[in-house]
Amino acid sequence: MKYMKKSFADMEVYHSTLITDGIILNANESPYQPPKKIIELFNEAIKKIEFNRYPDMDERELDAAIAKHFGVNPENVTVGVGSDELLSSTFKAVLEPGEKILGFTPAFSMYKVFATLCNATYESVYGDENMRFSIDEMIEKIKTSDAKAVVVCSPNNPTGQYFTEEEIRRLIESTNKLVLLDLAYINFASNDYTKIAMEYDNVIAYRTFSKDMALPSLRVGYAISNKDNIDMINCIKDPYSVTTMSQIMAKIAIENADLYKPQLDLIKSERDRVYNELKSMGFKVYPTEANFIYMNMDDKYYQKLLENKIYIRRFKEGTYRPCIGTKEENDKFLEVLRNAK
Amino acid sequence: MKYMKKSFADMEVYHSTLITDGIILNANESPYQPPKKIIELFNEAIKKIEFNRYPDMDERELDAAIAKHFGVNPENVTVGVGSDELLSSTFKAVLEPGEKILGFTPAFSMYKVFATLCNATYESVYGDENMRFSIDEMIEKIKTSDAKAVVVCSPNNPTGQYFTEEEIRRLIESTNKLVLLDLAYINFASNDYTKIAMEYDNVIAYRTFSKDMALPSLRVGYAISNKDNIDMINCIKDPYSVTTMSQIMAKIAIENADLYKPQLDLIKSERDRVYNELKSMGFKVYPTEANFIYMNMDDKYYQKLLENKIYIRRFKEGTYRPCIGTKEENDKFLEVLRNAK
Repeated sequence: MKYMKKSFADMEVYHSTLITDGIILNANESPYQPPKKIIELFNEAIKKIEFNRYPDMDERELDAAIAKHFGVNPENVTVGVGSDELLSSTFKAVLEPGEKILGFTPAFSMYKVFATLCNATYESVYGDENMRFSIDEMIEKIKTSDAKAVVVCSPNNPTGQYFTEEEIRRLIESTNKLVLLDLAYINFASNDYTKIAMEYDNVIAYRTFSKDMALPSLRVGYAISNKDNIDMINCIKDPYSVTTMSQIMAKIAIENADLYKPQLDLIKSERDRVYNELKSMGFKVYPTEANFIYMNMDDKYYQKLLENKIYIRRFKEGTYRPCIGTKEENDKFLEVLRNAK
Repeated sequence: MKYMKKSFADMEVYHSTLITDGIILNANESPYQPPKKIIELFNEAIKKIEFNRYPDMDERELDAAIAKHFGVNPENVTVGVGSDELLSSTFKAVLEPGEKILGFTPAFSMYKVFATLCNATYESVYGDENMRFSIDEMIEKIKTSDAKAVVVCSPNNPTGQYFTEEEIRRLIESTNKLVLLDLAYINFASNDYTKIAMEYDNVIAYRTFSKDMALPSLRVGYAISNKDNIDMINCIKDPYSVTTMSQIMAKIAIENADLYKPQLDLIKSERDRVYNELKSMGFKVYPTEANFIYMNMDDKYYQKLLENKIYIRRFKEGTYRPCIGTKEENDKFLEVLRNAK
C-alpha cells in the first residue's frame, strides 16, 4: 500500500466471509433475537426519530439508563461503537509509541491490533498446557514488566476461562497500573463483578450489548469507571460515533434487562450440555463460563461441519471455538461430530 | 487525567449542549427529514433485521450501491462511521508520530484533532483578509513543506469556499503527496467532482450521508479511491463499525438519491436568499457553496438569536456560522437580526 506509513508496512487488509445460510456458530453471537417486547418498544420509538439530526454526542439518555442499571452515576459511564471503540480509545489514551500493554495470550485478538495502531506492543503471558492462565503469574509479570497497563478478559475470549472476583481484586490491588477489564461475556458467568471498577482508581470495566443482550447489529458497548477515566476515554473517542437508533434501542434493552433471563439461562444450560457431550465424545475441551467453547479436534471434523453448513471459528488447525446456538443447532453440531467419529 | 499519556496531557474533554427546542442552525444539518419514500422503504426493511447478528463487516451491499451510484467498482469504496472515521483512519495510516499534514485554516476542526491523535501536526495555510484561500499558495506550500499529505475541504467548512474542479486538479497534479479531498458539502455546490479521485493515484475523496442526504443520525460516510488506498483505510478502521440499520438505510437513500433533488434545490435557493439578505443588512458574509454561511457580526446579534431560541455556531466572538433551515426558520433568523439592528 503506497501511502501506508512505514511502521505499518506489515498491515494486511482483512475481509470477512459473508455467511447467509446455515448454522452460524462462529461469532459468539446469541442465537436468539432480543425479547419481543424490546423489539416492539423499539419499533414504536423509531417512529419519532429525527433522521436529519446528529445523535446526542454525550449519549445522555443511554448513559443514564446504564448508570441506573448498575447503580452508578451517569458520569461513570460512556458509550462507544462496541466495547471495541472504548478499548481502542483507552489504548490510544494510555500508550505512547513504543510502550507496552500486558495481557494473556490467546485473548481477544483486537488487543494486539489496538496496541499496534498505537505503535505500541502487546506483551503476552501464556497459559499452561491446559490453556489455564494464572493470575499470580500475571501479578509477578506486572511487577517486573515496564508495561503501562494490563488488559484482562473474563471470561476470556477465546479460551472461556473465568477469573473469580477474588482473583481480579488481587490483580488490581497488586498494582497502580491501569487495569482494563473486558467483561463482554460476564453475564454468562457465575458472578457479574462489573461494579468493582467503581472501587478502585485503576480499573475500567468494558461491557457490550453484543453478547448477552443479543444486539451486535447496533454496535454499542460501554465503559464503567471513575469520572477521571471516563473523561479520558471521552477525550479520545470520536464524537457522535453511536447512532441515534443504536442509542434508543440499547436504552430500551438495558431498561428491560430482566426480560433476557430466560434466553441467558437457556444459553448457559446448553453450554454446559454441549461441553459435557463434547467431553464424553473424547474431544479436548476447556472449562468455560462464556457462550462459547474452546476445543481441540482433528481438522476432519471441521471439514465435516463445513460440509453441513455449520460454521465455527477456526484459529489454527486443531483449535476451534464453536459458540452456543439454539438447542436444535447444538444438536445438529453434536450429531455431525458424532457421525464423523 | 491520571492515566492519560504525557503527549496527550493537553487534551480536554468536550461535552455538547443538548438542544431540544427552538431553531437549530448550528450543526450544518438538513432542516428536512429524508424523502418519505426512503423512510417507508426503511421501515419495511428493518422488519427483517437480525438484531442478534453482527453487521456485514465489509458492507458489501452498501459499497455496491455507492459504487453503482458513482459508476465505479465496489473495491473503490469503503464505508465508515461518518466520513470522520475514514478521515481519521487515513490520518492514522499515513502519519507517523512527529509528521505533518497540510491544510487550510479555518477548516473542519477535526483535522487538527485527528492529527493530534496520531502525535502528528496539522500545518496551516491561512486565507487572505476576506478569508479566501489560494490553491496556488497551497501548491507553493506543498513544495517547501515536509508534510506527508494534504487535506482540502470543498466547499470548505466553515468558510463555505468552493474550489473548482480545475483548482483541485491543479493541486493534485502538482504533487505526489496524498491529497485527502473532503467533499461533505459538494452536493450543495455547482459541480460534484467526486469521481476525479479515480483518475489519480494520490487522491481519496470523502463523502457523507449526513449533509445533503439528511441522515446524520445514521453516522455513515464513505471514501472513494483506487483499491490500494481503499485497502489502506480498511486495514486501519475498526471492523464492524457501521451498524446493520445504518447500512440498510444508507443503501436505500443512495439508491433513491434523485428523490432528494427538491430538498437540495430548496436549500440552495434559500442559502442564496439568506446570503443576499444578510449582505444587504450590512453584515460581512463570505461567498459560500455549502448549506451554511460564514459571517461576522457583533455578539449582540448572537445574544438576540439565543434569546429567541435560534442556535447558530459561534467560533469566537464576532465569527459565526448559521446553516440553512426551512424557509420559515430562515425568515425568523433574518427577522431577529433585522429587529436587533
